[in-house]
Amino acid sequence: MASVSSIEELIDSLRQLPGIGPKAAQRMAYQLLTSDKETASRLGNALLNAVKNVKRCPRCNNLTDKDVCKYCSSIHRDDSLLCVVETVADMMVIEQSLSWNGRYFILMGRLSPLNGIGPNELELGHLIDRASEPEVKEVVIATSFTAEGEATALAITELLAKHTPHVKVTRIAKGIPAGAELEYTDVNTVAQAMLNRRIRENN
Amino acid sequence: MASVSSIEELIDSLRQLPGIGPKAAQRMAYQLLTSDKETASRLGNALLNAVKNVKRCPRCNNLTDKDVCKYCSSIHRDDSLLCVVETVADMMVIEQSLSWNGRYFILMGRLSPLNGIGPNELELGHLIDRASEPEVKEVVIATSFTAEGEATALAITELLAKHTPHVKVTRIAKGIPAGAELEYTDVNTVAQAMLNRRIRENN
Ligand SMILES: [Zn+2]
Ligand SMILES: [Zn+2]
Repeated sequence: MASVSSIEELIDSLRQLPGIGPKAAQRMAYQLLTSDKETASRLGNALLNAVKNVKRCPRCNNLTDKDVCKYCSSIHRDDSLLCVVETVADMMVIEQSLSWNGRYFILMGRLSPLNGIGPNELELGHLIDRASEPEVKEVVIATSFTAEGEATALAITELLAKHTPHVKVTRIAKGIPAGAELEYTDVNTVAQAMLNRRIRENN
Repeated sequence: MASVSSIEELIDSLRQLPGIGPKAAQRMAYQLLTSDKETASRLGNALLNAVKNVKRCPRCNNLTDKDVCKYCSSIHRDDSLLCVVETVADMMVIEQSLSWNGRYFILMGRLSPLNGIGPNELELGHLIDRASEPEVKEVVIATSFTAEGEATALAITELLAKHTPHVKVTRIAKGIPAGAELEYTDVNTVAQAMLNRRIRENN
């Protein structure tokens, strides 16, 4: 900190945030130091506290500042259901959809040979251990519907069939997004939705 | 910090940043805690250091962690020229344009009666003191070309004519932006540029 001023160091640090360019970093720094010093202090302390306290949940890989995360420790969730996702953000989207009351397992990525992420880089051994726990009856694979996400889903399906043959393995549905008009949906999605059509129940 | 987790507090704090919505704050927090803990620590320390060290330059209102800012203390700038801007960001744009080697004065806003910013809310008394220093020969008013910026420029012009009648008061030029095609420039700007036309010098 001999030659770089506190302001320049702040602008440089803000630029490291995902999605923040040089102009936005400068604007943020000036606003924080001009009219928002309270926000600056609060965010500074929040960052240092989170770095110190937040770690991975040993059961699901979620971020937590407890010994076990709130989804793993909740007594109101169904122990027989395990949902496999790629990232913490994916898990949060499912939580926000209010469509899941089982447990989670976060792979921390997906198979991506071009980026050097093979089976050993994902938490697949950890997943098999988790799915082998006697209360687990169904594993829902909720990886994304990209080529890499699909390859990951396939690899997990094969692994679980081999190691936990008594567990039912399912995949979240691929289809036309809620609120979308068919006219503006890409044909590949429409074709998949047609193939995956289900019998309409009377309810 | 009893019931709110370190992660929730971090997401909440990131949301206070200008231009950051709830989704972006969540994504940033997860990325910082998943793969960028070094960035998180660095930014946390930068924020707390800046809040502690950065203050207003007593001569020009610029942000600085020195007693006097680098533009006021530089021995390579022309003391006879003083440029009046609304904000630190405006000053930085002029610096980046490499078109100015005089001193600056930052008003910290502009007249905005609807928002309760009258002459007393701006640093106008401070500006008159600064413009009264004997070495000042010209004050260039570089407030913006909005209604409020123009009203601010007018008020400053009248104040300086009264208190420092020996000082030349100028206004940066309004006209067609560099690189713009006339066809796509709004007619008001074209009309102003025509009114403000200048004799072409042979250089
Ligand atoms: Zn957990
Ligand atoms: Zn200064």
